[in-house]
Amino acid sequence: MNNKSIIETQYYTFAEPPGEVPLKCGQKLGPITQAYETYGELNADKSNAILVFHALTGDAHAAGYHKGADKPGWWDNMIGSGKAFDTDKYFVICANVLGSCKGTTGPASIDPKTKKPYALTYPMVTIEDMTLVQKYLIDHLGIEKLLCCVGGSMGGLLALKWTIMFPDAAHSAILIATNYRHTAQQIALHEVARQAIISDPHWNNGNYYGGALPATGLSLSRMIAHITYMSEESMEKKFGRKLQDKETVGYDFKTDFEVESYLKYRGSSFVDRFDANSYLYLSKALDYFDLCEGRKLSDVLSPIEAKFLIITFSSDWLYPSYQSRELVRALKTNDVDVSYLEIESNYGHDAFLVETESQARLISSYLKRVWKERVI
Amino acid sequence: MNNKSIIETQYYTFAEPPGEVPLKCGQKLGPITQAYETYGELNADKSNAILVFHALTGDAHAAGYHKGADKPGWWDNMIGSGKAFDTDKYFVICANVLGSCKGTTGPASIDPKTKKPYALTYPMVTIEDMTLVQKYLIDHLGIEKLLCCVGGSMGGLLALKWTIMFPDAAHSAILIATNYRHTAQQIALHEVARQAIISDPHWNNGNYYGGALPATGLSLSRMIAHITYMSEESMEKKFGRKLQDKETVGYDFKTDFEVESYLKYRGSSFVDRFDANSYLYLSKALDYFDLCEGRKLSDVLSPIEAKFLIITFSSDWLYPSYQSRELVRALKTNDVDVSYLEIESNYGHDAFLVETESQARLISSYLKRVWKERVI
Repeated sequence: MNNKSIIETQYYTFAEPPGEVPLKCGQKLGPITQAYETYGELNADKSNAILVFHALTGDAHAAGYHKGADKPGWWDNMIGSGKAFDTDKYFVICANVLGSCKGTTGPASIDPKTKKPYALTYPMVTIEDMTLVQKYLIDHLGIEKLLCCVGGSMGGLLALKWTIMFPDAAHSAILIATNYRHTAQQIALHEVARQAIISDPHWNNGNYYGGALPATGLSLSRMIAHITYMSEESMEKKFGRKLQDKETVGYDFKTDFEVESYLKYRGSSFVDRFDANSYLYLSKALDYFDLCEGRKLSDVLSPIEAKFLIITFSSDWLYPSYQSRELVRALKTNDVDVSYLEIESNYGHDAFLVETESQARLISSYLKRVWKERVI
Repeated sequence: MNNKSIIETQYYTFAEPPGEVPLKCGQKLGPITQAYETYGELNADKSNAILVFHALTGDAHAAGYHKGADKPGWWDNMIGSGKAFDTDKYFVICANVLGSCKGTTGPASIDPKTKKPYALTYPMVTIEDMTLVQKYLIDHLGIEKLLCCVGGSMGGLLALKWTIMFPDAAHSAILIATNYRHTAQQIALHEVARQAIISDPHWNNGNYYGGALPATGLSLSRMIAHITYMSEESMEKKFGRKLQDKETVGYDFKTDFEVESYLKYRGSSFVDRFDANSYLYLSKALDYFDLCEGRKLSDVLSPIEAKFLIITFSSDWLYPSYQSRELVRALKTNDVDVSYLEIESNYGHDAFLVETESQARLISSYLKRVWKERVI
């Protein structure tokens, strides 16, 4: 896989089994199509597969270039020939999560029963359901055991869940800037984002497909999210009090500061690339996520057979390091092989996508170790 | 002043001077009425006056009870007989800021020229303008020099500005959980709140008086604000993942978690007590605030004659301690008498209103010192 590799998204639609997938909420959903991409070559004994889980608004296009595209996939600085996830050695897979709008069946998809978009008739999917259907994809690819499953932010929850739901289906897991259950502040921030969407008259109880989009609400929700992805320090360094295309403030309610203009831009451009209902469903799936559900963390972790590498970032206030440290402690209590590092960074939660070098060094040597120590 | 003192709000309308007040934005505004309250007695030589500046959505009712009210003023745990601001010794004044909606002339007030609410014809007021008109009030009360001016959050900016605009009009200033210029993150959070209001169709370019209020937008803006007032830890302790009136999650978009319900309640109840346009004007005034405006901080501080007590809270991420420490450093460079303390607290920015005991001890002994050392 070269630097300018052209990648095509592939699609896998479940026939049977499982056909209709029983979901955690009690409903069933099917047929389910999953969009996925692969990078590198699967080796003969299928022992070099790495499954990458994307974050909330990510997609299957993790690396390489789509035909005619200027920009590569979202983790291209980490996946490729000679990179951290070295495609000369490993076979890397990334699938769009259930409930999203990037090729995998979600609320914007057509319900075959009604021939109309699911909208709010789409069932509530959970992190567990997303993980389950990716297992079907890995089965479909004929892979019994991943060398590694890896994810940052929401992706980390899927990677963690994978090691518990399918203990013998991964040698290792890498969790980056993530958590083991959503906390009150994380829920609160999502709830404001959801209310912004739901309050938009164009949202129309989820039935906006083919009409005006709830652009204002979705844009607002993205503005909030962007603030949480940066740190106070990185915002100050990037924007400070710089004015937007003016010498002095306007003493009105038009845009004065660059940071205002930036957020508005990020908000409105999000409307072009993401479905508002998917945002509702996926944010809710995150909020519902609680690995413990009343049980003791170390008990819940007891099925785990995989090794762990857990990475956090010092200025990440959305998924602060202490949350991962609690998980590290419980894993160690269970005698799980865990490496943990908090990387010093000013980039906040975004560091996961920005701090390439330090992560690449860590991950590349970790994968070498896992590759050596794997039991086939 | 007893514990259950009945307090009446008073009003002062400028006749002349100043009549129409020239504002920083270049426009004039007048006549201006200011709502204010006083607690305790002004002594014979008028040397025991303390001016309290309230925060963004506060009001003149800082202490005591309005007739028939169940709840006292917003800082009643700090102002009263035997309390930190001891009304047996001191004469305490609190006025509603310019641009607010709690009795002082703001965008919801009637413009005498048109006999209609100002709405967006209200000029952009600044922290400097708010401070200036409070000086007129203090002049009106016949007080030449305050023993102390004090404020938390936005109020701290007014107290700081007072010591520069009127160096010989205060012996001391107490700044709590505040800043000397609004940073990118603070601006960003306000801008999202403003966009939430402006996007509400009922906002109607500010002309909603007498009609449906932009309740959804204002409520959203308050939900965002509330998250920023608490710390991650205090949210986790207070709410965690507790469910609201149910045994299990609903797998739908109704309220599941207590924290969601709390935010919605705080949002909707805010609509009953605050004017959306005032929120726009006051948040903008905060964002415009930059004590330096291109000059060196220590140069800007050079007129200062007052002593300072500066207090921050360890978990306040909206006005983090480092911002006050920069101010402390610059004041010390200018050989100003500054006492600084960061109080350990998990309550985030709210600590200013919650951590009564530790603040009361500090402030009460500080005021005793200032009282002794004052030069009349």
